[in-house]
Parts: sequence; structure tokens; C-alpha cells
Amino acid sequence: MPSFSRLVRFLARDGRTYYGDAILPRGVTDISKARQARVVQGDIFGQHTVTDQVADIRLLLAPLAPEDVRTVRCLGLNYAAHAKESNMPIPQYPVVFYKPATSLTGPTDPIPIHPLAQQHTGLDYECELVAVIGKPCADVPEARALDHVLGYAVGNDVSHRDWQLKLGGGQWSLGKGFDGWAPFGPGIVGRDLVPDPQRLGIRTRVNGETVQDSTTADMAFGVARTIAFLSQGTTLMPGDVIFTGTPQGVGMGRNPQVWLKDGDVVEVELDGVGTCTNKVEFSPARSAKL
Amino acid sequence: MPSFSRLVRFLARDGRTYYGDAILPRGVTDISKARQARVVQGDIFGQHTVTDQVADIRLLLAPLAPEDVRTVRCLGLNYAAHAKESNMPIPQYPVVFYKPATSLTGPTDPIPIHPLAQQHTGLDYECELVAVIGKPCADVPEARALDHVLGYAVGNDVSHRDWQLKLGGGQWSLGKGFDGWAPFGPGIVGRDLVPDPQRLGIRTRVNGETVQDSTTADMAFGVARTIAFLSQGTTLMPGDVIFTGTPQGVGMGRNPQVWLKDGDVVEVELDGVGTCTNKVEFSPARSAKL
Repeated sequence: MPSFSRLVRFLARDGRTYYGDAILPRGVTDISKARQARVVQGDIFGQHTVTDQVADIRLLLAPLAPEDVRTVRCLGLNYAAHAKESNMPIPQYPVVFYKPATSLTGPTDPIPIHPLAQQHTGLDYECELVAVIGKPCADVPEARALDHVLGYAVGNDVSHRDWQLKLGGGQWSLGKGFDGWAPFGPGIVGRDLVPDPQRLGIRTRVNGETVQDSTTADMAFGVARTIAFLSQGTTLMPGDVIFTGTPQGVGMGRNPQVWLKDGDVVEVELDGVGTCTNKVEFSPARSAKL
Repeated sequence: MPSFSRLVRFLARDGRTYYGDAILPRGVTDISKARQARVVQGDIFGQHTVTDQVADIRLLLAPLAPEDVRTVRCLGLNYAAHAKESNMPIPQYPVVFYKPATSLTGPTDPIPIHPLAQQHTGLDYECELVAVIGKPCADVPEARALDHVLGYAVGNDVSHRDWQLKLGGGQWSLGKGFDGWAPFGPGIVGRDLVPDPQRLGIRTRVNGETVQDSTTADMAFGVARTIAFLSQGTTLMPGDVIFTGTPQGVGMGRNPQVWLKDGDVVEVELDGVGTCTNKVEFSPARSAKL
């Protein structure tokens, strides 16, 4: 049972990186507004303590440390109106693909666009409810599936439509898996603070203009049903991250189609959780030497 | 630079689990024949030592510990004759999908078949050369790509064709990602012992009968080219595992088609590396409690 309410990971004013329980002003629920947090010590999936040490937040980081992330699963076509705008049928079973852990990045980090994805049209956003698994989970029934959730965040399943749909042999992971193409956060709201994950407003703004505006009530496979389905024969582990699909309004589905450009600012927002604000940054190839 | 020749992970006669450098009789290269190993201490991707301590091998395990595995990538349709038998074109770029780390299992472990995959036809084998990344790798040119490889193993990309191709919305990961559906090993042969990974015989036997028999020379995208491609905009990390595709002869491509059954024994073999021998085991659903 997590003892925190809103888990954040952050660079503090003292120059160190901590897990913490975000401190929010009364009436505020957007974790990105937190300026301080109580430091959390121990294993966030197991024995841990919310200490009395209050630290000043200099920068919110991806809410899970790389070493605490296991597998990143994503659902496709999980909102009826988005399936329609994609000219795809509503699937009979959840459609599952993966992103590498290296695609995860923080709630205010830039989204680097490698030259490979600058050469074609099709750079797109997808706001998504993100569920983080807190306890191992195998063949769990839908009625108990949410007991295995640590909490919820909002994420952006950044996608390049040409690489996703045309150049990747029909497999979506390549065109969605580049470094930094899965901003998430701003923190993880503990599951006890979210009585029903299927009643949350979710939206995207690009340069301040609202382009997606929906509710998780429209998900074809809700979080509990998704976890129950995925856990059949496949053990979900603490640190597994599930992006649960995006509603209508993506750039690909607009008329005319609209693609993200260098310098665009994308905000994804989930009610009760908060906002990630990330700038699109066309980048040169990195050196082979890390 | 790894100091081991053939990395194994094993349960020893003393009841403990070790990494080790396999000791093989003169003239033998199949790591599955090793009965002893020199214990390796330290970080297999960094500072480590092959000690003088010789341990008796009771059971070879998956050659990477779960905590040392990062992302498992797989290529599809990477041998021309296999693309043809699958009625798919040879792809212009590598076709990439993922398996979860929980699919990895050891060289003699049973392959558990969950009821979900017992209810349909299509259970199939795929022998593959497996490359393990040893050093971080970003935008690496093809000529230097193999410097980032820790070594090579053989693996079985166990696949359920109905879930892979028909019921998963066209995304292959679900029908290939069940627990234990990626046996690999029997160990990891250091890259220095494999001067050319594109000149290795590779084959599969089912109940002793040879069903795949090819050479890695027939790969469309060789290991170096694959790593160079994948590392564009996506950092490959130590502990990333790459299944590089299977040659012709899978059960789906045979006439009539042949599917694996409960109790079948599948051997996948790569010259200079060794053999994984795994029994297909139809299993009940697991308890939700782990």
C-alpha cells in the first residue's frame, strides 16, 4: 500500500534527486504546480517512508527512475472516435505495442526529434492516461485489477505516422519509440485518490490551442479491463507502465492534417493529475560515444 | 571489454546462482555441454573479474538475470525465404517489435502455454540469433556497431500465429510476449569468439526432426546493420537483447501447416554458441496472487 498521495521525482535545490510526496496548495490538484515535496525514502513499490524532510523542487523529472521502470506497454485505437478518425475498426481485443524505457522523459523536458523523423511528414501528439503497476499481477480478474495499480499519470505517446504506419512494416513501435518520445508525469497520483479512472477529463493543447478534449469514459477497454486482459499469461511487474490509448483529435485525423513542427509546445493534461508541457526540438544526430 | 569467453548464469551444486565463464572440453563449442564454470564477479557490463573459483553447474539459467535485462527487441521477416513463406514482402527497413523481459527464460526451461493460447491454432517456433548489447549505443555507424555487442546467443521467438496476426489488431507483440516465450542461451558467446556473426549455421528441431536449417548469411539486415539502424534516435543500452529474425521452415509456412502441441520438445541451435532445448507445456491459468 503506497503511503504517498502524489509521487514525484525531482531535482531539488540542493542539487540532489529525490522521490517525494508533492505538497500542493489547498484546492490545487495539478502536480506540476508543486514547489515542495516531502522526501520519500525506500522502495517506492515496497517498504518506504514519507519523511518529514521537505525539499524545494527545482525541476520535476519523469516520475519513475530509469532503474525502476520495467516494460512500457501502450494500447492503440482504444477510444471509439479515435479509431474512426484513424480509419481503423474498433478492435475486438486491446491492441498492444511497446515503447522502450528510453522513450520515457519528464513533464517539462524537450521532445528531441532525430533527423530520421525530420525527413518525413507525420509528427503527432497523443494524450493518454498512464497506469503504473505497483504489484505483480498474473491472471487477475477485472474486479481486482486496480488493486495492482500504484497510481496514474498523464503521458504523451509521441508518434511519427510515416514511420509508425508506412515505413515500419506495419509494426508501430519504431515510429513511437525514439528517445524522449514518451513524456509522462507530472507525478503519479496514488490510486486511492482516483476512485474511478474512467471519469477523468483528458486533453491536449498545441501552442495553447486545445486539439484533443475528451474523457476517459470513452475508452473502449477501461484500465481494469486492460490490466485483466494483459495479465493473462503475461505477468505484469512493479514498474510496468501502461499508456492506455488516446482520444480523437490527433493531427493525423484533422482535416487538413496538422503535424508538429520544431519549437511547438505540447501540453497533455489529465484532470486530478496534472499537465506535462514539452517543447518539440529538432535535433542533430548524437555522437556514437556516450 | 568482457573478460569472459562464454558467459553463463547457473544454479550451482551449492544451491546458489552465479554468473560464470563456461568451461568446455577441448573441441566442444556448445555451451549447453558445460558442467563447470569459473565464477564471474562484478558487473558483467562493466568492471568484473573471472575468478579462480570453479563451480559445478546444476542448471543453466537464462544467461541474463532479470535485473540485468533492459529492452527486448525483435526483427520480423529478416530472412528472404521466411518472408516468402509468410506471404510478406521483404521489408525496406528492419521490422521491429518487442517482447517483455518476462518472456525470457532459460535454455532448458519449459515453455508454458497459457489457456488463452491453447484455444486457437497456431503455436509456432522461430530459431534466431540473439545479440546482447554491452555498451550504450546511439547513432553508431555500421562499421563500429559490433563494438557495442557483449556477445551472441540463440533464442526461440515462440509465436502464436492467431494472436500475432489475427487477434492482436495487426501488432505482433501480444501473440509473442507470454511468460517464458523467449527461451535463450545456453550462454552468451563473447563477440571476440565470433569473428563474423553472418556465417553461422542455425536450425530448429521438433521432437528430433529438423524443421529449420539455414545460415545467418541469409539475413536481410545483418547484426551490424540492424544495430546501426536501431540506434538512430533510440539509444541502445547494456542489457538490451535483440532477436534478429528467423529463417524459413516455421510451422506456419509448411504445407500442411504444423503447430506445436503439448509435450513437444523444441531445440534451437546456433553454430559456435549451442542449443536450447525446451518442452512445450500446456498450463492452467496462474493464481492472481504472486
